[in-house]
Amino acid sequence: MSNSFGQLFRITVFGESHGESIGVVIDGCPPGILIDPIEIEETLNKGEARFLPGITSERMESNEFKIKSGIFNGFSTGAPITLEITNEDQKDSPKYEKRKYTPRPGHSDFTASLKYGDFNDYRGGGRFSGRVMVAITAAGCIAKKVLLKYANIHIFTYTSRIGSISFQMDELNEGILEKNPYDFLSRCPNPEIDNLMVKEIVKVKNEGDSIGGTISCIVHGVPTGIGEPLFNNIESFLSSAMFSIPGTRAIEFGTGFRLAKMKGSEANDQLYYDPQKDRFETRTNHSGGILGGISTGISPITFRLAFKPTPSIHKPQHTVNLKTKENIVMKIEGRFDPCIVPRAVIIVEQLAALVFADLFLLAETSRPKNPVFIGYEDD
Amino acid sequence: MSNSFGQLFRITVFGESHGESIGVVIDGCPPGILIDPIEIEETLNKGEARFLPGITSERMESNEFKIKSGIFNGFSTGAPITLEITNEDQKDSPKYEKRKYTPRPGHSDFTASLKYGDFNDYRGGGRFSGRVMVAITAAGCIAKKVLLKYANIHIFTYTSRIGSISFQMDELNEGILEKNPYDFLSRCPNPEIDNLMVKEIVKVKNEGDSIGGTISCIVHGVPTGIGEPLFNNIESFLSSAMFSIPGTRAIEFGTGFRLAKMKGSEANDQLYYDPQKDRFETRTNHSGGILGGISTGISPITFRLAFKPTPSIHKPQHTVNLKTKENIVMKIEGRFDPCIVPRAVIIVEQLAALVFADLFLLAETSRPKNPVFIGYEDD
Amino acid sequence: MSNSFGQLFRITVFGESHGESIGVVIDGCPPGILIDPIEIEETLNKGEARFLPGITSERMESNEFKIKSGIFNGFSTGAPITLEITNEDQKDSPKYEKRKYTPRPGHSDFTASLKYGDFNDYRGGGRFSGRVMVAITAAGCIAKKVLLKYANIHIFTYTSRIGSISFQMDELNEGILEKNPYDFLSRCPNPEIDNLMVKEIVKVKNEGDSIGGTISCIVHGVPTGIGEPLFNNIESFLSSAMFSIPGTRAIEFGTGFRLAKMKGSEANDQLYYDPQKDRFETRTNHSGGILGGISTGISPITFRLAFKPTPSIHKPQHTVNLKTKENIVMKIEGRFDPCIVPRAVIIVEQLAALVFADLFLLAETSRPKNPVFIGYEDD
Amino acid sequence: MSNSFGQLFRITVFGESHGESIGVVIDGCPPGILIDPIEIEETLNKGEARFLPGITSERMESNEFKIKSGIFNGFSTGAPITLEITNEDQKDSPKYEKRKYTPRPGHSDFTASLKYGDFNDYRGGGRFSGRVMVAITAAGCIAKKVLLKYANIHIFTYTSRIGSISFQMDELNEGILEKNPYDFLSRCPNPEIDNLMVKEIVKVKNEGDSIGGTISCIVHGVPTGIGEPLFNNIESFLSSAMFSIPGTRAIEFGTGFRLAKMKGSEANDQLYYDPQKDRFETRTNHSGGILGGISTGISPITFRLAFKPTPSIHKPQHTVNLKTKENIVMKIEGRFDPCIVPRAVIIVEQLAALVFADLFLLAETSRPKNPVFIGYEDD
Repeated sequence: MSNSFGQLFRITVFGESHGESIGVVIDGCPPGILIDPIEIEETLNKGEARFLPGITSERMESNEFKIKSGIFNGFSTGAPITLEITNEDQKDSPKYEKRKYTPRPGHSDFTASLKYGDFNDYRGGGRFSGRVMVAITAAGCIAKKVLLKYANIHIFTYTSRIGSISFQMDELNEGILEKNPYDFLSRCPNPEIDNLMVKEIVKVKNEGDSIGGTISCIVHGVPTGIGEPLFNNIESFLSSAMFSIPGTRAIEFGTGFRLAKMKGSEANDQLYYDPQKDRFETRTNHSGGILGGISTGISPITFRLAFKPTPSIHKPQHTVNLKTKENIVMKIEGRFDPCIVPRAVIIVEQLAALVFADLFLLAETSRPKNPVFIGYEDD
Repeated sequence: MSNSFGQLFRITVFGESHGESIGVVIDGCPPGILIDPIEIEETLNKGEARFLPGITSERMESNEFKIKSGIFNGFSTGAPITLEITNEDQKDSPKYEKRKYTPRPGHSDFTASLKYGDFNDYRGGGRFSGRVMVAITAAGCIAKKVLLKYANIHIFTYTSRIGSISFQMDELNEGILEKNPYDFLSRCPNPEIDNLMVKEIVKVKNEGDSIGGTISCIVHGVPTGIGEPLFNNIESFLSSAMFSIPGTRAIEFGTGFRLAKMKGSEANDQLYYDPQKDRFETRTNHSGGILGGISTGISPITFRLAFKPTPSIHKPQHTVNLKTKENIVMKIEGRFDPCIVPRAVIIVEQLAALVFADLFLLAETSRPKNPVFIGYEDD
Repeated sequence: MSNSFGQLFRITVFGESHGESIGVVIDGCPPGILIDPIEIEETLNKGEARFLPGITSERMESNEFKIKSGIFNGFSTGAPITLEITNEDQKDSPKYEKRKYTPRPGHSDFTASLKYGDFNDYRGGGRFSGRVMVAITAAGCIAKKVLLKYANIHIFTYTSRIGSISFQMDELNEGILEKNPYDFLSRCPNPEIDNLMVKEIVKVKNEGDSIGGTISCIVHGVPTGIGEPLFNNIESFLSSAMFSIPGTRAIEFGTGFRLAKMKGSEANDQLYYDPQKDRFETRTNHSGGILGGISTGISPITFRLAFKPTPSIHKPQHTVNLKTKENIVMKIEGRFDPCIVPRAVIIVEQLAALVFADLFLLAETSRPKNPVFIGYEDD
Repeated sequence: MSNSFGQLFRITVFGESHGESIGVVIDGCPPGILIDPIEIEETLNKGEARFLPGITSERMESNEFKIKSGIFNGFSTGAPITLEITNEDQKDSPKYEKRKYTPRPGHSDFTASLKYGDFNDYRGGGRFSGRVMVAITAAGCIAKKVLLKYANIHIFTYTSRIGSISFQMDELNEGILEKNPYDFLSRCPNPEIDNLMVKEIVKVKNEGDSIGGTISCIVHGVPTGIGEPLFNNIESFLSSAMFSIPGTRAIEFGTGFRLAKMKGSEANDQLYYDPQKDRFETRTNHSGGILGGISTGISPITFRLAFKPTPSIHKPQHTVNLKTKENIVMKIEGRFDPCIVPRAVIIVEQLAALVFADLFLLAETSRPKNPVFIGYEDD
């Protein structure tokens, strides 16, 4: 149960940090979707440490992947699609054995040891490792192909904060779609801010410390009527998905926490009809493109995530030996990622695609089939 | 699908604002749970407009409820438990008919009309109404009884912001458990702050405007090992649940968004062993009591929600006629709730109880059955 | 979990034999379905004891029902539809208390007592009572309306055996659709056989005994392509549903158990093209209209269920006192239904409608969206 | 959705006949289960054509398998366990291309072509192939290990009919547990009957024809209280699972279809208390060990499945060209399995283990937690 996500477009993720591979079974992909292995490879590279020189010394993965099922003559058949990505690091390492009873502060080591005891796979974070996310990144490519059947959706994801350096795109400016966050090391598509963010990361890295940040996501092109009232609303699906990314600590939609300080007269996106575009419009997007859990189709859907600083740092920290109950000062050594944010941008983007593929399939069955006064025609 | 929540302890909610009743079917409640109707009644009253004199003129509901199934001799039988709460307001009103094609800005009216067309139940928000939450409030009472079988859990929920007035409890101070937020009109358990918050609400009310706020929740007493890695983590369950409450726009766990500005050396909750309590401890709780999606058992689980200002305000606003495409200035009249936050506190609390009942039942099957070096004994 | 069925068109059933009511929440009904209360009432009557004079002395129910949610101006809104049917028999009766520790042989009393102990609702079978099926009967009416959106489906259900008297319709003869099994007391649409079946039932009834039987179901009009490979095949859905009817002990599709004695050359339905109808056809229907779990669209879908004789009989039987462990001779008195089959016919029919509504909605998302060489056009 | 089965112990199956491999992800396996690769290999061999010389000429598979995730130091970790079995036959073969538009009668070719059109993977039955069942066989080994945590369960499965040759074990005789059906080519554990069955198969094989049969399953050792009322009953779970095996056409529990001809006084298993065993007992087992969908704990759980004759035969048959609509006489050549039954015995057994693992985990949360007058103690 724990390892599947989605209702109609459903992924099941398997594998652990130091196992043979990470994989994903995609169930519910409609038949007739053209699968492009080169696109998957390029997307996997967007999250790869080796493409972020200088700002991470995390392990290098080749991201060699295989499509194991569900494709025939290049198209999905309707059968489950399985993608598998080989792990480079499969060997047991003595350093992990040493760490078995001494959890790294701020890391899942503590809860994993207590919950699973001797059966915990403690090597490199095991099932809790960020490495598992490579399956999400790959599966998202299939989701994006499915979305193309429904709408011209563009998911724009970027780093909006590293520590004290922040940046906010103008989501209502369609021009942002021409930028490519992956052209920038920090994934912030502004050259000056990118420069500052990279400097911030390098600085904490040199201190043996780490830094948090935020990622913003702008989903353009979702038509009205996606999402359902009560439990299957867009925000529930997106937030539930996003908190599966290690390090996510918060999510806000539209104007988010700042709405708590606002009045209704400021916060409501007032409506007008634009006769030239023959569309209903708003001048603001405090709602993040969602009302009552359902896409408005007027403005892009927007949300922002907070990531905590990576817990593995080189500075000495207090911890315990779970077995002997001794108090210990721990100093973690070796490879190390001072900021998870630049590598998480592609994960957020791909996970959003997976969520919307599911929401679009669900919306197929939740709309009226008869012609109605406005909106959907009978299909 | 849309109207059920939970995997093993599962609720299905039915009813709409101006229907005969709101109800909930609770499936998966173990047999032998003593159900207390008086407790349910008292809990429902905590969310009632008539107990918030002055700060709301929302409709008054008697919250008369019936237990329709699943109880025998006062105890749950294992069969689904159905609770039904009668709606006072069942009559169709001409004001609703008038509003059919003219959505209130910031309200689900717009998306509901476009998605459902002529079949939309537009009376009082229909299925999108906050009134539907009364089912959650009632069901949460059963969840709390189930939780008592597992641990001495106390869910402390309070208003932590109304507009510019904010307040933060010290979650690590066990003394807060003696306070009762429901003794205060604003649900903020500090007399001076409560006073300021009430004034803030009355002020915007008199302006015909509304105001946002935040609610904080502190869950004491959750033992280690609740929650699962990847998709069934505590944060995914809680966030998915909370975004079903109308008006929720953001959620953060522990130190939340502020972690984005912090370094790892500040953010990690460092561990030590306290020989007197024979417990592992931390001096901070930036993690919100959760690591790797699993409860630490050390600190309380904490999260904070942002609510937008109520969209229905008395000030004139721009909107459209969806049918004629005319631009309109709308002035909403009548009853009106200038701030949803005080009434939402009990909803958040009850929904948290529902989530934890489900997480505890799931944890029954996800732990090892054999004795292990530390943690759970074989059961 | 236990009390919901269906994936996209999903019912949740609540209530027990001697509770206030039996109810069902239907989630996933598309908006815009016209609901006809008179049709529901007439359908409920088809399963009612008072319309089977002479062959049953089971309790009489008025089947007064209410639509509690999900309908506006006569149409479904997309919100969950709740139907509730009042129980006439709500009073506790001393006879049930007496029976608390002495299970009726062949009845769920035994397992219910052992599983739930003191918390078992033993009054009239509680949650295990056939009375619960009235919710299925009602919900099936909504399913049938949904099916009309997709195809001209006709579900023909009839009694094909009572004890030694058996009858088989010619399923390939479209003429059978003009018959109405509910015009016959036994639900067998052949006057002579009906007469023999009724006599068989009256005979065992006079002996204080009961009798088993079979029900056959022929689903006309299902187009090709409904059902999925592996786990979501038509047979898995139908069988899983049908075994929720108390007393069902077997199901077979098409030629069923007789296929075990046949050769492939006999059993295969050979294909030919009929140029006049411009259709592929077969001359036999051993497959029951299903190949690989998917509807062929050529022949009707057929299945047959075996029902055991009602366990409650007036003859003395050996049983035990679960508490004192005494051996006992029990003689059940009072109202009594010597054969469940005639009353179960409508339940089978309605449950089949519920299953197909779910299968049709699922098929919406499992077909290719692009034009293909044959079969579905792009929609 | 279509490719997952189970609620708490859940398998997701992937792969197709001529893909690279068949695999299964097992989610919900508790941590601490010792996995034995040799046992898996031996079990896979029980379903292998090469171990059934003479009675099949089906393709030979090496059944080389890999454990790809979820195991650490030989034990399950709680993470999803992935098993993958390589396909020997991966090459595209011109014979399949030829067959693309000409469905074999009685085979899923017809429905698969119409449902999926050009996207159908028609090579060797693709997703519909019996080869997919190898994943079930492997996964069942993990399920059996889980069951050992709960009870001393023994699943005895055997061939009870091939064409006109039938055989019925005495399920109440514990002595049968010493027999091993896999010592016999037909999987019927009686030397004379086995001999007759093998002769029957060889005879039809030489005719270029095929033959049907039945498989019986006797599950010893299930304690009372497993299964739930209404939809999660034992029969619904087992039947739903079993109809995913290609060729299954019927299932009956206990005395099954013969109950339709019986009276209540014959069919009820009357109860008595055996003071020597300190157990409640029955002298018959018409109920198949299940009452009200819940295990009685008195008698073994019994069911019987009918399999149709393999549709691929060497005799000429009428079929059509789906594209040109020509009528065709088809003669299938090459490898060929005249009777699926002997190879399906292990699949039925393993699938039953998977179902019971899920039912046992579900029962953990559906029993009362308090002490009760009889049955379960508080745990």
